[in-house]
Amino acid sequence: MKAKIAFLYKPFDLRIEEVEIPELEDNQVLVKLGACGICGSDVECFEGHSKEGRYDIAPYTPGHEWSGSIVKVGKNVHTLTTTNKVTGDCVLACGVCANCKEGLMPSACLNMREAGFRPDSPGGMGEYLIIEEQYIHRIPDDWSYEMGAWVETFSIGYFGIWGNGGYIDASDTALIMGGGPVGLSATMVAKTSGAKTIVVDPNPKRREWAMKYGADITLDPTASDYKRKLLEATNGKGPSVIAEASGNDASIASVFDIAGHSCRVNFIGHSVGRKIPVEIGRTIWSTLKIKGSGGTKDFAQRTIRFMSAIKDKYDFDALNTQHIPFENLNEAMDLAANHKDIAFKVMLTFGE
Amino acid sequence: MKAKIAFLYKPFDLRIEEVEIPELEDNQVLVKLGACGICGSDVECFEGHSKEGRYDIAPYTPGHEWSGSIVKVGKNVHTLTTTNKVTGDCVLACGVCANCKEGLMPSACLNMREAGFRPDSPGGMGEYLIIEEQYIHRIPDDWSYEMGAWVETFSIGYFGIWGNGGYIDASDTALIMGGGPVGLSATMVAKTSGAKTIVVDPNPKRREWAMKYGADITLDPTASDYKRKLLEATNGKGPSVIAEASGNDASIASVFDIAGHSCRVNFIGHSVGRKIPVEIGRTIWSTLKIKGSGGTKDFAQRTIRFMSAIKDKYDFDALNTQHIPFENLNEAMDLAANHKDIAFKVMLTFGE
Amino acid sequence: MKAKIAFLYKPFDLRIEEVEIPELEDNQVLVKLGACGICGSDVECFEGHSKEGRYDIAPYTPGHEWSGSIVKVGKNVHTLTTTNKVTGDCVLACGVCANCKEGLMPSACLNMREAGFRPDSPGGMGEYLIIEEQYIHRIPDDWSYEMGAWVETFSIGYFGIWGNGGYIDASDTALIMGGGPVGLSATMVAKTSGAKTIVVDPNPKRREWAMKYGADITLDPTASDYKRKLLEATNGKGPSVIAEASGNDASIASVFDIAGHSCRVNFIGHSVGRKIPVEIGRTIWSTLKIKGSGGTKDFAQRTIRFMSAIKDKYDFDALNTQHIPFENLNEAMDLAANHKDIAFKVMLTFGE
Amino acid sequence: MKAKIAFLYKPFDLRIEEVEIPELEDNQVLVKLGACGICGSDVECFEGHSKEGRYDIAPYTPGHEWSGSIVKVGKNVHTLTTTNKVTGDCVLACGVCANCKEGLMPSACLNMREAGFRPDSPGGMGEYLIIEEQYIHRIPDDWSYEMGAWVETFSIGYFGIWGNGGYIDASDTALIMGGGPVGLSATMVAKTSGAKTIVVDPNPKRREWAMKYGADITLDPTASDYKRKLLEATNGKGPSVIAEASGNDASIASVFDIAGHSCRVNFIGHSVGRKIPVEIGRTIWSTLKIKGSGGTKDFAQRTIRFMSAIKDKYDFDALNTQHIPFENLNEAMDLAANHKDIAFKVMLTFGE
Repeated sequence: MKAKIAFLYKPFDLRIEEVEIPELEDNQVLVKLGACGICGSDVECFEGHSKEGRYDIAPYTPGHEWSGSIVKVGKNVHTLTTTNKVTGDCVLACGVCANCKEGLMPSACLNMREAGFRPDSPGGMGEYLIIEEQYIHRIPDDWSYEMGAWVETFSIGYFGIWGNGGYIDASDTALIMGGGPVGLSATMVAKTSGAKTIVVDPNPKRREWAMKYGADITLDPTASDYKRKLLEATNGKGPSVIAEASGNDASIASVFDIAGHSCRVNFIGHSVGRKIPVEIGRTIWSTLKIKGSGGTKDFAQRTIRFMSAIKDKYDFDALNTQHIPFENLNEAMDLAANHKDIAFKVMLTFGE
Repeated sequence: MKAKIAFLYKPFDLRIEEVEIPELEDNQVLVKLGACGICGSDVECFEGHSKEGRYDIAPYTPGHEWSGSIVKVGKNVHTLTTTNKVTGDCVLACGVCANCKEGLMPSACLNMREAGFRPDSPGGMGEYLIIEEQYIHRIPDDWSYEMGAWVETFSIGYFGIWGNGGYIDASDTALIMGGGPVGLSATMVAKTSGAKTIVVDPNPKRREWAMKYGADITLDPTASDYKRKLLEATNGKGPSVIAEASGNDASIASVFDIAGHSCRVNFIGHSVGRKIPVEIGRTIWSTLKIKGSGGTKDFAQRTIRFMSAIKDKYDFDALNTQHIPFENLNEAMDLAANHKDIAFKVMLTFGE
Repeated sequence: MKAKIAFLYKPFDLRIEEVEIPELEDNQVLVKLGACGICGSDVECFEGHSKEGRYDIAPYTPGHEWSGSIVKVGKNVHTLTTTNKVTGDCVLACGVCANCKEGLMPSACLNMREAGFRPDSPGGMGEYLIIEEQYIHRIPDDWSYEMGAWVETFSIGYFGIWGNGGYIDASDTALIMGGGPVGLSATMVAKTSGAKTIVVDPNPKRREWAMKYGADITLDPTASDYKRKLLEATNGKGPSVIAEASGNDASIASVFDIAGHSCRVNFIGHSVGRKIPVEIGRTIWSTLKIKGSGGTKDFAQRTIRFMSAIKDKYDFDALNTQHIPFENLNEAMDLAANHKDIAFKVMLTFGE
Repeated sequence: MKAKIAFLYKPFDLRIEEVEIPELEDNQVLVKLGACGICGSDVECFEGHSKEGRYDIAPYTPGHEWSGSIVKVGKNVHTLTTTNKVTGDCVLACGVCANCKEGLMPSACLNMREAGFRPDSPGGMGEYLIIEEQYIHRIPDDWSYEMGAWVETFSIGYFGIWGNGGYIDASDTALIMGGGPVGLSATMVAKTSGAKTIVVDPNPKRREWAMKYGADITLDPTASDYKRKLLEATNGKGPSVIAEASGNDASIASVFDIAGHSCRVNFIGHSVGRKIPVEIGRTIWSTLKIKGSGGTKDFAQRTIRFMSAIKDKYDFDALNTQHIPFENLNEAMDLAANHKDIAFKVMLTFGE
């Protein structure tokens, strides 16, 4: 069987090609794509700003925010069947290396693959996708594919707050730093858990969006009265939970200054490779608990349950500012890369 | 009753004066001092390098590492009685402010006093000390006063590893950074819990000591092959637990580089007021859990039990490199301040 | 100053007497009562079915669900002042015994007092109440006294789910067993945290109420198809969180049969003194985590924040089925004791 | 290739047969057995007292306490190679069902296999064993096979105390109930973690053994002064950690009576299918935390590290009271079944 699949050859060289779909291994399934979101990290790889996308090894198929329907299963696959709607993990752990057997995060896997970033683990920018049974998760039949394509993004925000022993409730005041797709996911999570939720973003449009997706208050971190307003919004105490989802240096450094006493701090936004001057000493006198999340672990099904619980409350569909047919992939990538003011989430769609 | 009490008036101006001991409040006890250690922070205050000691308000009596015997109790004191050997907390929480009622650390108390650093809460550098019942803890009768004077220091190292949800066992490899009194305490704690314990200190004498107090291996962080040896000592994985007890900038920054995957990082050594460039992004991909400890909470009795369990195994007495009679306080302070090479812990003693 | 105060002398002998209010100790406050709820345990003591109420020592003033305004403060009281609206703890820990210094629950205090159950710690059934600063908590000025009188009850349900390391979120399915005041509080807590919430009670009226206070589904545990319906409501998996708030033997025994895998089980309803046959072995194969809550710790302020967050969503006032002036106390007690079908919560009121 | 393998056909019908070893699947390894212990549950299945062993489906090969050397690997196996010494899991989770993807314990797997209990997952009572890469764990080359055969047993005791958020340190007093192989493992774990360790067993020989494997004190639960002595040994407070490893009804019921305040209770010994009258109400006023462990999760490697850390301190070899060649399997089973007084652990050995 032949199908149209996208390959990133090098920066700015993203081609759709018709290729032969290989036979399934016994533990694999063939998924017909229904939707695939374009993530900021896809854009970074497309533009050559990130070493995460490994076209240096061989062209690869991007897209780690996908959903679709199973059209064929390998002979050892018994938990899923054709017509099931599914989404899939991004970080693919081998399950047999020392770190996997230790129970560490998938991102610690010594044979880690990363769907949509490497030739050995194709992403969702294609008509079809082959992936192993262990990495896919059924979504409810009444979900749209676009909703399913949000599971991976949402799980990052959700795990950021609730993963690795995190928690939040209505007695908390949460500060979400960064109002992008992951930040808004964290916002919905904090609000659904009952917390007073403050979203910080310099972009007024993003602050406006945040108010629709769970924020009680939004603040501009570049405003001169930012810290005063933040204290006001937290009864003079500072936030009890912080999710830093921007990855911005100034934002990261400010965490240590504005965290309330005993604040649970969650770093989600990436800043690997950069040293940032922070007052680490505040960890001590503010009794901070800080944790990071390199991907998620055992969280996809829980995320799907969480999203099911809130999907009638928040308009997930409206988050997709553009729906672009897969065939027009380069147009979609251009929107995501060069028109961030209007492109909150560009969603690729696929014909029946 | 009159007694000799030391007062720090200003840097380098530490005087012993004979003063009248006030009457006890109903909830106070009068303690006759048995021993009092000199802490690095006492030296910093003596030399005027720290704002912690508040002689700017009025002269105060230093000494937060003390033990003694109760000689008189206020009329509402029923849990302790004369002749009881006791030690006391350093950070004194009021118990009635909003933060105390929230259950936060004593260091978050809105009316916090700090024994041995402020005029309102005298320390152990005096023949007698008055303190409230709630802040003192009975030590076993068969302990020496000098052992009792180590409770506060030991509790910092112990809480650093085990406080706020921390833990360690024989499957862990612990890295203790800094081989001073707190670092050695953390070393004994890690070893007693069964962990392989690595102590890092640039001072060869301190590394030698560390080997006597629980270290399996010691390393010099200034050596060119430090990181290679650390990897070797951790089977190529990096430590699973770190206690940063040096407060040194380079040491703090290195934590993020050398921590193993899923490492539990505990900041104990102070660096408040300084921004240190660190690769905070490693928090994410190494899935670090980081916490700080500004003092301890509900930990004195547990510390005393822990120390009782190990006191026949480690020679606590040998940690006191000098025993100086209280009367010679300025000599003792000079030793602690200017002869750090030979003065690991200067212990003030008091006559019968 | 004289005031009318109720005293329970023996079963069914509850008298209002005019007595002289003693002078305040330095750490006490005088509260003019605004409202006081009648709890099921008050009724049990009134009827002589419980050893909790200690009139065997001397007559005591019942009422541990109270709020009021401060009219006078002792000379050492600085965190609260006259006109502040407050509520108070029920279990009063001394703060100085070995168990308190260990950080154990107030109910472990070796000198424990219990407000409203003992002569040494009067409750809220009186025009005035004297209590120590450390046990009272300010409520917002815009709360009614009746709302304030719900803090203690609500905190039991809240701590039952969230105390001692508990947690719940929108991915959970919670089973609340017992739809009385504590059960409904737990129901509101579970729902506010986003969980699908199932309430079980044999009383149809209570099930009806539960639907107004957060339940998604209610079930009758005496119905023949109860277990089938419970499985249906939990997607065949059983609940992931259980709060047993009924204290009923059959209900307690059933917990082990119906808990889902890895269920967090919280026992709130009392059954002390009775051995109940349960399949404790299920703890193992269902990997249960079970905890109990004898009162709460450091939770009043957090409870007040939680209730503030939801007070516009749930009609707390409607929970008070009867408002009876304090003067008619015996009528109120009769309602609470003998008309449980119509008396969900009898609330005593006090004139200006 | 042909090999001698044992099969349990029905109670008391355990035969060694020469059978053809099948070809390896790509993800499997062929292990030549080095040692295999006989567990109490093997005896129960042999005697027909347990439904765990599924010879009702087909004859199966018992033995879940085994170690051996890899002699051949499937073509997809890359983390292990021939000559590696290994041991294996008992509970084999599929990794793809809903419960596995949720991260639940292997014993919750919807397609669970159990090595040594079922025809689809052969145990170690044979010259060779085929098992999937994901379920085996390398042991150090310098370990004996007999030591390797103790990993599974030890992991149950270890996980019982440290799994699912458990912990223990030198400030704790641990009560281990039952001095069999799992109980002694828990004893070594508690002692290695520094805790004062009390072992309770009615058998004087087992109490004697316990003293060699970490117990500080042993007690006879049938003695009239048992509870008094237990209180004495715990300073009047009761144990702070309990591991119930006997599965005995009276022992289980007593847990609720003797647990100290805030005790962490771990049920390890099986009692599934039996209702035992216990005072569950104590969960509340003693603020107990109770958890059960149906197998372990991600714990084999950690167990191997733990055992490596203590193997020079405790004589693991002496635990094997009998070494019987595999050929004499029925004699070995007879020892384990009918001579429990002398057979603490019967270890099957295999020739070169």
